[in-house]
Amino acid sequence: MNPLRALVNGRAEALVPAASRLQYGDGLFETIPIQDGRLLLWPAHVRRLTAGARRLGLDPVDPALLAAEAEGLAAGFGLAILKVVLVRGALGRGYRPEPAPTDRILTVWPWSRRPPADDKAPVFWCRTRLARQPLLAGLKHLNRLEQVLAQREFTDPYWEGLMQDTQGWVVEGTMTNLFLVEHGVLVTPTLDQAGVAGVMRDRIIERARESGIEVRVDGLTNARVMQADEVFLCNSVIGARAVLKLAERSWRPGPVTSRIQDALRTGGDAPAL
Amino acid sequence: MNPLRALVNGRAEALVPAASRLQYGDGLFETIPIQDGRLLLWPAHVRRLTAGARRLGLDPVDPALLAAEAEGLAAGFGLAILKVVLVRGALGRGYRPEPAPTDRILTVWPWSRRPPADDKAPVFWCRTRLARQPLLAGLKHLNRLEQVLAQREFTDPYWEGLMQDTQGWVVEGTMTNLFLVEHGVLVTPTLDQAGVAGVMRDRIIERARESGIEVRVDGLTNARVMQADEVFLCNSVIGARAVLKLAERSWRPGPVTSRIQDALRTGGDAPAL
Repeated sequence: MNPLRALVNGRAEALVPAASRLQYGDGLFETIPIQDGRLLLWPAHVRRLTAGARRLGLDPVDPALLAAEAEGLAAGFGLAILKVVLVRGALGRGYRPEPAPTDRILTVWPWSRRPPADDKAPVFWCRTRLARQPLLAGLKHLNRLEQVLAQREFTDPYWEGLMQDTQGWVVEGTMTNLFLVEHGVLVTPTLDQAGVAGVMRDRIIERARESGIEVRVDGLTNARVMQADEVFLCNSVIGARAVLKLAERSWRPGPVTSRIQDALRTGGDAPAL
Repeated sequence: MNPLRALVNGRAEALVPAASRLQYGDGLFETIPIQDGRLLLWPAHVRRLTAGARRLGLDPVDPALLAAEAEGLAAGFGLAILKVVLVRGALGRGYRPEPAPTDRILTVWPWSRRPPADDKAPVFWCRTRLARQPLLAGLKHLNRLEQVLAQREFTDPYWEGLMQDTQGWVVEGTMTNLFLVEHGVLVTPTLDQAGVAGVMRDRIIERARESGIEVRVDGLTNARVMQADEVFLCNSVIGARAVLKLAERSWRPGPVTSRIQDALRTGGDAPAL
């Protein structure tokens, strides 16, 4: 499938040079829901791109230019998904980049069919482990082979897979961040060695604290996940979604998850469907 | 810089869809010297692509088709470099690939200006560490942010940087494999946790054994590299090149390195310059 609309460095086209540094995964991306032409949590996505570009040493992108391009592209869509990719802008062969303005690849996609409407769809434990790499941990960069291999492990009815790192610490889902509820406290994995620091994860931490829910960031074992009172997964597109079945364990929808979902709905943080 | 010639799925063009799975680094590549229209060590490069495609679950590419495309593209070049990229062939958004034929991106580039002619140019110790990921170790895949960050650490006069993994084991150069000589024995790092199993590395191991030189594959510390009798780096483009300066240590050109270089020259494994 090709995108519904595309803009490459401001030009309405869906092609990039074969010599783009996409060939090294040398860049960053964001996935942003469009609802009624509006880009949800846009400022948070741009902040993350800016911080990521600094960590990778990409030439900074003008936030006003990026906003104008994104808003222009999103206009007229009722419900869709904008993907923003920033790629180090040099062309050529060889890992060492020449200084060049960062490439901007914006594409609009139909609304996701995932996760399925059935909220009892189970979640899978992936065998694919995430490498521990503090230099890249937290970044939503373009080196995503681990996620590709993990998603090849499962299929319907599973809607998502949980991943551990190579030392066995639980990190995240393939496309989501993880939260547990333990005795009323919200707990989410440390992301200093692996994982993506999701925009929705940050927003949920803020909303929880505003609502008087304690939040802890901690190393999580597989056993601790299985013993949690509630478990949910989140990203910018799905908001927060309860995990009701994971391996042999089932859960009922829980009160803390509901409070978080309500807070996101009230705040306009996640798409209202 | 754009490539001198390009062929994308058999069509003479240098553009790929923005929705290509290059956006996840979901593929493999080879860098192959062209001399007088011939592709050096072509069968070994194709074997590695085939094995890598199997590990990543890419749709297999017909070796005869790939050879025909590569030979056609290489014809007429006296000295140049062919880059072959295989990318999982589905378009779209989301990590999970739909089944699709693998994309073939072939490009021809001018002969490399690196390493510099000055064979006394020093080698750098990079601070960027390689993550330990047995699922991807050995593969020449497209997730290359670690190499990009490592090459950003050094500049002329350094022609290459050595990398350790996150546990401190020495793995390789950013674009080369590493060999030491210890008491007449050739030693090269284990690549079961990180690193690229280079075509030239394999060939050197074969040539050494044919020449009666013992070869060991082992875990190597930084200290062991610094104490070696000889050190050299290799890849398909440069063949084998002696390291004559690394941090505070200097070496003179050594006899085992010379024998390997002679064997590669005699065997037609590396470009004759």
